[in-house]
Amino acid sequence: MMKNTLMRFKLPIICFIWEIAMIILFGVFVRYNHEAGPNWAEFKKTRNATSDIENDFYFRYPSFQDVHVMIFVGFGFLMTFLQRYGFGGVGFNFLLAAFGVQWALLMQGWLHYFKDGKILIGVENLINADFCVGSVCIAFGGVLGKVSPVQVMIMTLFQVTLFSVNEYVLLNQLHVIDAGGSMTIHTFGAYFGLTVTFILNRPQLSEKNNKEGSLYHSDLFSMIGTLFLWMFWPSFNSAISYHGDGQHRAAINTYCSLASSVLTTVAISSLVDKKGKLSMVHIQNATLAGGVAVGTAGEMMLTPYGSLIVGFICGIVSTLGFKYLSPILASKMRIQDTCGIHNLHGIPGIIGGIVGAVTAAAATEAVYTTAGLTKMFPLVPGFRSPSIQGGYQAAGIFVSLAFAFVGGTIVGIILRLPFWGDPSDENCFEDAIYWEVRTDRQTTSS
Amino acid sequence: MMKNTLMRFKLPIICFIWEIAMIILFGVFVRYNHEAGPNWAEFKKTRNATSDIENDFYFRYPSFQDVHVMIFVGFGFLMTFLQRYGFGGVGFNFLLAAFGVQWALLMQGWLHYFKDGKILIGVENLINADFCVGSVCIAFGGVLGKVSPVQVMIMTLFQVTLFSVNEYVLLNQLHVIDAGGSMTIHTFGAYFGLTVTFILNRPQLSEKNNKEGSLYHSDLFSMIGTLFLWMFWPSFNSAISYHGDGQHRAAINTYCSLASSVLTTVAISSLVDKKGKLSMVHIQNATLAGGVAVGTAGEMMLTPYGSLIVGFICGIVSTLGFKYLSPILASKMRIQDTCGIHNLHGIPGIIGGIVGAVTAAAATEAVYTTAGLTKMFPLVPGFRSPSIQGGYQAAGIFVSLAFAFVGGTIVGIILRLPFWGDPSDENCFEDAIYWEVRTDRQTTSS
Amino acid sequence: MMKNTLMRFKLPIICFIWEIAMIILFGVFVRYNHEAGPNWAEFKKTRNATSDIENDFYFRYPSFQDVHVMIFVGFGFLMTFLQRYGFGGVGFNFLLAAFGVQWALLMQGWLHYFKDGKILIGVENLINADFCVGSVCIAFGGVLGKVSPVQVMIMTLFQVTLFSVNEYVLLNQLHVIDAGGSMTIHTFGAYFGLTVTFILNRPQLSEKNNKEGSLYHSDLFSMIGTLFLWMFWPSFNSAISYHGDGQHRAAINTYCSLASSVLTTVAISSLVDKKGKLSMVHIQNATLAGGVAVGTAGEMMLTPYGSLIVGFICGIVSTLGFKYLSPILASKMRIQDTCGIHNLHGIPGIIGGIVGAVTAAAATEAVYTTAGLTKMFPLVPGFRSPSIQGGYQAAGIFVSLAFAFVGGTIVGIILRLPFWGDPSDENCFEDAIYWEVRTDRQTTSS
Repeated sequence: MMKNTLMRFKLPIICFIWEIAMIILFGVFVRYNHEAGPNWAEFKKTRNATSDIENDFYFRYPSFQDVHVMIFVGFGFLMTFLQRYGFGGVGFNFLLAAFGVQWALLMQGWLHYFKDGKILIGVENLINADFCVGSVCIAFGGVLGKVSPVQVMIMTLFQVTLFSVNEYVLLNQLHVIDAGGSMTIHTFGAYFGLTVTFILNRPQLSEKNNKEGSLYHSDLFSMIGTLFLWMFWPSFNSAISYHGDGQHRAAINTYCSLASSVLTTVAISSLVDKKGKLSMVHIQNATLAGGVAVGTAGEMMLTPYGSLIVGFICGIVSTLGFKYLSPILASKMRIQDTCGIHNLHGIPGIIGGIVGAVTAAAATEAVYTTAGLTKMFPLVPGFRSPSIQGGYQAAGIFVSLAFAFVGGTIVGIILRLPFWGDPSDENCFEDAIYWEVRTDRQTTSS
Repeated sequence: MMKNTLMRFKLPIICFIWEIAMIILFGVFVRYNHEAGPNWAEFKKTRNATSDIENDFYFRYPSFQDVHVMIFVGFGFLMTFLQRYGFGGVGFNFLLAAFGVQWALLMQGWLHYFKDGKILIGVENLINADFCVGSVCIAFGGVLGKVSPVQVMIMTLFQVTLFSVNEYVLLNQLHVIDAGGSMTIHTFGAYFGLTVTFILNRPQLSEKNNKEGSLYHSDLFSMIGTLFLWMFWPSFNSAISYHGDGQHRAAINTYCSLASSVLTTVAISSLVDKKGKLSMVHIQNATLAGGVAVGTAGEMMLTPYGSLIVGFICGIVSTLGFKYLSPILASKMRIQDTCGIHNLHGIPGIIGGIVGAVTAAAATEAVYTTAGLTKMFPLVPGFRSPSIQGGYQAAGIFVSLAFAFVGGTIVGIILRLPFWGDPSDENCFEDAIYWEVRTDRQTTSS
Repeated sequence: MMKNTLMRFKLPIICFIWEIAMIILFGVFVRYNHEAGPNWAEFKKTRNATSDIENDFYFRYPSFQDVHVMIFVGFGFLMTFLQRYGFGGVGFNFLLAAFGVQWALLMQGWLHYFKDGKILIGVENLINADFCVGSVCIAFGGVLGKVSPVQVMIMTLFQVTLFSVNEYVLLNQLHVIDAGGSMTIHTFGAYFGLTVTFILNRPQLSEKNNKEGSLYHSDLFSMIGTLFLWMFWPSFNSAISYHGDGQHRAAINTYCSLASSVLTTVAISSLVDKKGKLSMVHIQNATLAGGVAVGTAGEMMLTPYGSLIVGFICGIVSTLGFKYLSPILASKMRIQDTCGIHNLHGIPGIIGGIVGAVTAAAATEAVYTTAGLTKMFPLVPGFRSPSIQGGYQAAGIFVSLAFAFVGGTIVGIILRLPFWGDPSDENCFEDAIYWEVRTDRQTTSS
């Protein structure tokens, strides 16, 4: 029995209503902050800044643009690997991210940047909004090809909301450090997406559908996504670190960790194949695990060799996950994880949280200097010892997981409602359901 | 009857002569400015700058690189959507832009940066040259697939010249603000290109040619162009804004406007299709209309919600244009607009000019601060009231249109001369006319 | 007779051992430098810096990211032009670069940044490591499709070592200027790769293999690589120039030179074809020659028109090399240069060295100012006259060539050992040997 996948009124209505809501809420709440408004000239003096170059724009805009590329081209093209779902991969990712950043500016604004009834935004808010949406892109990878664009929009609305609250609990209540988002972005995003996938389980999917695979050229498109994610991850993890050595160090650590995970990914990919051949799935994904896993500790004194070790481990764990764990999750646990987000974001995210907790617990004044320690961990040493800070860091992992499981369950149940227009099993991973695709394309193939 | 499309001597001769002319003119006129030459160390002191970081290079180079990507990868790949014209789309765009920036450095240099007989250039000149060439890329989108590379080179020579004069009239005579070029780049570029297309009309094209459509993979290549344009548009609109809050605000406004136009594009694209399916043509193009339309007002106090409204409207207007207006232009008005530049750059460009005029007319000292108002509008309040400034802004639209229509007519007539090697109707949209294309490709297709 | 191309144990073992060696060596030697460690706050004061923005991170990180894109996406996708070797092109490039940067951080660290038993790293080291690996990417282009990943890893280990020593001799012994690496990166990389290719000659390759050609879409993938190399080359040549006018000028010169070489490449490409058609091979490669050739002189007072002249010449020479020289090298000199690195990096690299020598010899205080001359050439005027500096610059070319020939011969002989798993002639340029490639791809082709 074919499902009704007609989007003609559902999708336009949801897009219009939500965009109009954004306009109204932005009109009431959102204004420029002191660095983006005309009072910058005055504000500069209060900060003892002598030059316009000290505007936060110049500290963070290049990193912001790299993050922006990761969200739209990185995640977007990473999801074009399916043979007949390239439009949906890159196109729905585009849609969800464009909506998500607006809602994230509001949610994060109310929770973090609210003053005198207004949300004051600048370049840091744009980065944070992109970060928040990154977690939705991750979750989208789990359900890729099996949901309608309306479901994607609904998931985005709820996930951005939950992300922002979880982030608020971690950063403002637990006072956890997580500048690159191992916990808030990756752990939360992945387990949220996996929970939704679990609820949306399609028991007969694999029997009825033979489109869940890649083509030669779709794998090359996907590598565009992989490489832009890989190259710009140092910017991701350093984008909102504190000025100076904080940003500098986060970039170096991420660079090292990523380089290391490429080698172990290649090693394991070859080792687990009978003929020793490399798998594009592994290269496209597991090479990135090193970046996920230094999201928390990237700006800490992880040291370059510490970063190499983290990347070394994550390349192995992630590749083994793709080879052995994903099939088990699909067959035994009803989790049909299209992009393998558990292997790329789930496990490495948790590892990243643990690495952050251990690194924080091991912090000493000898290593950080007294001033540096306070800069890195504002509550240390006055209110917390480093080990207590480490404990709070670890707690952040569990809070993120709890938000993911509870939130994912609720959102999954909402998405199961029968009128959102999701495709039947036969039509999963098929662009022609939601996109105009030329039928004569085969005859002029190149 | 087949036309003579042999490029063997025409194209080399034109490339050689023009490049040699560039060398001679650069030799006579072009030198480094005070920030790029060895006298920077002295010049720095006269500006009370204490650090090399205050060199304009560090304010603008990251934005310049983003703009550079938009011109060469953004416009280039956006034009690869045709099934058999990918080489021509990306390749001729490469050629025209590489020539155009050199000629633009001279033309803009003579008009804006000429001092003591020399043109002094720095990073801002590189951005302005890329901007100027952007208008040629737009016009090229109108004639894509129907002209020879020699015609492209000739069009570039004239259009860069006209662009520079129009820009001079707007910026230096009318004292209009247009940092992101809604008027100078988009309005002028689009209507110039449409006028040329009108003159070069091919009445029997659609009957004889069935290559004017996309393929599955060519649409994905085109999305590379779309996304790099979309992501880097905040850099485009902020690249030559004034330092500090000017650049900061232009980036925020463009980010907001673009996010909004994605949602309304998706909504309208689904709404106007009988089956509610999304069209890649709309997603590839109309999502960008929000960036075009805040090109003038981006650095003004447009406010974030004002930007959302502009993007909201432009996503709708642009998508409706692709659906309903383009077919009418082609059938009734002899305008065969290959890429739909009227919908992406023409109408949104005019809207952008109007938004700029209204925003300027509404400027107050309360909003901008006294110093800020002068920084934004140098002739306000001393010589002009805000509403007068708004009037001049509006005049800029009409001047740009006049330059486009008159200039486009003259250039179109020149391009109609019978010896430039344009293809016959049967060979439009076919790479094999101007490129070596392997004939055995079908047999090893992937 | 088929060769044994099984990678199952060789490749994992080499990856694991080398990555573990990296971890140990990083653990012993590598630490953050004063700008990336927590002592930045103190160090800043010793440099009289008042703001965090004066951290070297903000001078160089945007350029670093552009260089990073060139190495991984630029070189990677440039090498996807072969019809059935896209995975190997982009994937092995990814592997070699990820390993190479780690080894380069150590080698360059020991030779240039070693202090009190430690290598202190910051963003400049990341750029230099990417530069070093760039020379390996170049050499890889010569042997593309004909070597196993194990051979690639071995070549990388040796080439990075030799690069670093050669670089040390040039920069620290001969005191040569080469910020963009015309000599150290391009000349050395190309002739090293060509020597290896010569030693690994396969006399019967062209008879047995018909896969050494491109497809329509593989040529478009390759253009992604070309354009990102072309666009970001100004960042490459300016990335490690001195702050302020040095970086500024290098970017301008490279921009000019590259624009010029596009026009002469197009001109010659059309002229040498009987039907006047353009060749994608030329556009993909020779357009970049202008960037290679201003690698040495980019930050000097080459002047914009001098840059145009260099690009003009190199576009011509490089395109002619592809058309006429490469076939001769292959048939008469046993050099089967897959990507034509001799034309893109070899000859233009030598030209770049010569341009640098001449420009240095012509330096005067009148042009550079007294302080500027010392900044550019630290040994001039105190220890060397400009013409002596020019002589040393020229000597740098010969030293680089000597390292390339001797090193390439030794490494080539090592790579000829029969147990590295290289493919038989029939299987060259075929991904299916080292990669899992779906066999059903033809049936669902798009």
